[in-house]
Amino acid sequence: MPNIDGQRLLADLKRLAEFGRYKTGVHRPTYSPVDVESRHWLAEKLREAGLDAVIDGIGNVIGRNPSAGRRLLVGSHSETQPYGGWLDGSLGVVYGLELARAFHMDPGCAGLGIEVAAWADEEGHYGNMLGSRSFTDALPEDEIDRIRGRDDGTPLREALQRAGFAARPRERVDPRRYVGYLEAHIEQGDTLDASGLRIGVVETIVGIWNYRVSLIGEQNHAGTTRMVRRKDAGVAMVRLASRIHDRFPEITGPRTVWTIGRMLIEPNAPSVIPGRAEMQVQFRDADPERLALFEKTLHELVLEADRADPCRVAIEPMARSEPRPMDPGFQAQIEAAAERHAPGMHMRLPSAAGHDAAVLSYRMPAGMMFIPSLGGISHHWSEDSKEDDIVLGAQVFADAAERILRAA
Amino acid sequence: MPNIDGQRLLADLKRLAEFGRYKTGVHRPTYSPVDVESRHWLAEKLREAGLDAVIDGIGNVIGRNPSAGRRLLVGSHSETQPYGGWLDGSLGVVYGLELARAFHMDPGCAGLGIEVAAWADEEGHYGNMLGSRSFTDALPEDEIDRIRGRDDGTPLREALQRAGFAARPRERVDPRRYVGYLEAHIEQGDTLDASGLRIGVVETIVGIWNYRVSLIGEQNHAGTTRMVRRKDAGVAMVRLASRIHDRFPEITGPRTVWTIGRMLIEPNAPSVIPGRAEMQVQFRDADPERLALFEKTLHELVLEADRADPCRVAIEPMARSEPRPMDPGFQAQIEAAAERHAPGMHMRLPSAAGHDAAVLSYRMPAGMMFIPSLGGISHHWSEDSKEDDIVLGAQVFADAAERILRAA
Repeated sequence: MPNIDGQRLLADLKRLAEFGRYKTGVHRPTYSPVDVESRHWLAEKLREAGLDAVIDGIGNVIGRNPSAGRRLLVGSHSETQPYGGWLDGSLGVVYGLELARAFHMDPGCAGLGIEVAAWADEEGHYGNMLGSRSFTDALPEDEIDRIRGRDDGTPLREALQRAGFAARPRERVDPRRYVGYLEAHIEQGDTLDASGLRIGVVETIVGIWNYRVSLIGEQNHAGTTRMVRRKDAGVAMVRLASRIHDRFPEITGPRTVWTIGRMLIEPNAPSVIPGRAEMQVQFRDADPERLALFEKTLHELVLEADRADPCRVAIEPMARSEPRPMDPGFQAQIEAAAERHAPGMHMRLPSAAGHDAAVLSYRMPAGMMFIPSLGGISHHWSEDSKEDDIVLGAQVFADAAERILRAA
Repeated sequence: MPNIDGQRLLADLKRLAEFGRYKTGVHRPTYSPVDVESRHWLAEKLREAGLDAVIDGIGNVIGRNPSAGRRLLVGSHSETQPYGGWLDGSLGVVYGLELARAFHMDPGCAGLGIEVAAWADEEGHYGNMLGSRSFTDALPEDEIDRIRGRDDGTPLREALQRAGFAARPRERVDPRRYVGYLEAHIEQGDTLDASGLRIGVVETIVGIWNYRVSLIGEQNHAGTTRMVRRKDAGVAMVRLASRIHDRFPEITGPRTVWTIGRMLIEPNAPSVIPGRAEMQVQFRDADPERLALFEKTLHELVLEADRADPCRVAIEPMARSEPRPMDPGFQAQIEAAAERHAPGMHMRLPSAAGHDAAVLSYRMPAGMMFIPSLGGISHHWSEDSKEDDIVLGAQVFADAAERILRAA
């Protein structure tokens, strides 16, 4: 069995966190100078681990194994959320690096190849899982032409130019090359932490369905317009949002979540009756039928509101990702490895966040493993996990990877 | 009786509307180049009407009558809302100009003086009724130091400098000089238009009470945070807003209006649970007891929400204006004049919008008269009134002004 060097692993995680350190977390947006620097550092570390490493035309760092017969692709993304945590993404990348080293140094693993990927922009500073989509042929050139940075509107082409990646070819997957893809990640929720368990075996990455609901009323003077004459789009929005929050709990599955994270009213002035309002409704579940029921119910509530209210209410679908079940064989191997290293301290669970593994799963068998997030805190600089859990997770992950490669 | 020249009146209104014309309305923000130009034009027209006209240090255009024994101050504001109407404000200013001319030309009115004011920034591009507050000693220097433009943040001092007003003295009221203040305005609501009446006698300018309600939850990941653990400030806001819209109709007076015109959630991103929300609640009524009941009820609802919800909810008062009754003698004179020129075609009503007359009423008797707004449309370029109503209104207004001056 390839042996994890816990101290080396933790030292590399801490070194990577120096690129963009912010308090106890990291601020390392995709294509920022520290992100570019960290990708060059990662490529160098992969070379030291015996891999042929390149940074490609979208910023992916890919470490290929020139000699192995059977290969497993292992990785995650390496940029962070704004003022985000030091483990989110980085953990899975450094696990990949450590597995590559452990396999390389273990004579018993000759012929079993770990290849490593540090995907670009899973966190969406520019697009939506740009790196893994580029690698799997799911990112057309004209989308790259169009995309702009969500913060300052910088065109993606310009950001790639500045990062020094623009002239490089984009690496593309050859699915025949791989047994499959494995990704480790912090859970981000509190299921493991709250139940005192140490390893999570991901069954499915949830589907995420998004909608824009628009409410059209009549902008008017907040003094002279009598109540009976008003068509207040803000009133229509808060009433419909309340109805959604009343109704969804009645149809929820055990792990469904829904969020109205974005609301806007126009002109948003204290003395003007809002003439237009908009909200974005999102729900997530691992079960496609549950998602379909939520969609049906949302459409009913919108129709009801449109009929009942003096305002017109319309809904349009936005970005949608389908639930992606993880490979059952990979799940079994991760679970068996967890049982060997931490008997009874593991569970199966869905991932409520999106991950590159969902993108990869369209092209090859994919699996994911979680370690606990302290307090379930995520996308915040205070995110953390216990060092013991980080090291244990890597050993379970390496063990599972070896079994998966041998079984192939 | 001083005789209104309807053609001259309409021609001047149309000429004034050329400064910043937008479609059939006007875009003339306070201290913009067209606003400055229009104030110089107004000063010149007041001089032609026999008045000593000045533009003062806050941009007020004041036309003084050097010879009269008894004087009535007549006016309104001359800037417009963004892409606003051609009559709002301008009507009252040009009525003042036309009255000054009509009194000047009527030998029977010798000794009866009309003085005219075109106040600056009633519409609040920079502050809140800056001109009339400056004139009535209710605008301290340090407030002028602090104020910035609501659109681009230009300091008021800089805007005054650019307008050429900064070095001028601010004119101050000598209340002993005046019998009182009269202001004509379009109704802005649809009460007169819907009932086919032609003149409104304003009884009271409503009080406007404003509050900021803040809701503090916990920002978190919209996927990994289970519903039971959430403290969603957006949910708390829509539920409280719905409760307000349910409860206020139960305590409303015949003409109370309430508006939640401004709502914000943070960080306002589709995949993030809102950690903070804020809304501005406003209500208006002519009756101080009704306003107090609304305030008490709002505080109860906020307290209820704070207790029931996982989020913390707090309320703080913002700008508040008290109801200002118009002078009963002035009301009677306007009503009598309306009855002479348009028998049975007038009514008494409150003003649901704020006006400079409310500010002036703290220093002298004040009265207001409305003419109908077509469809009650206001603060929009399509705002309009019938020409017949505009001319009739001026004649009623002139008649009432003469009687008020003679009665003094």
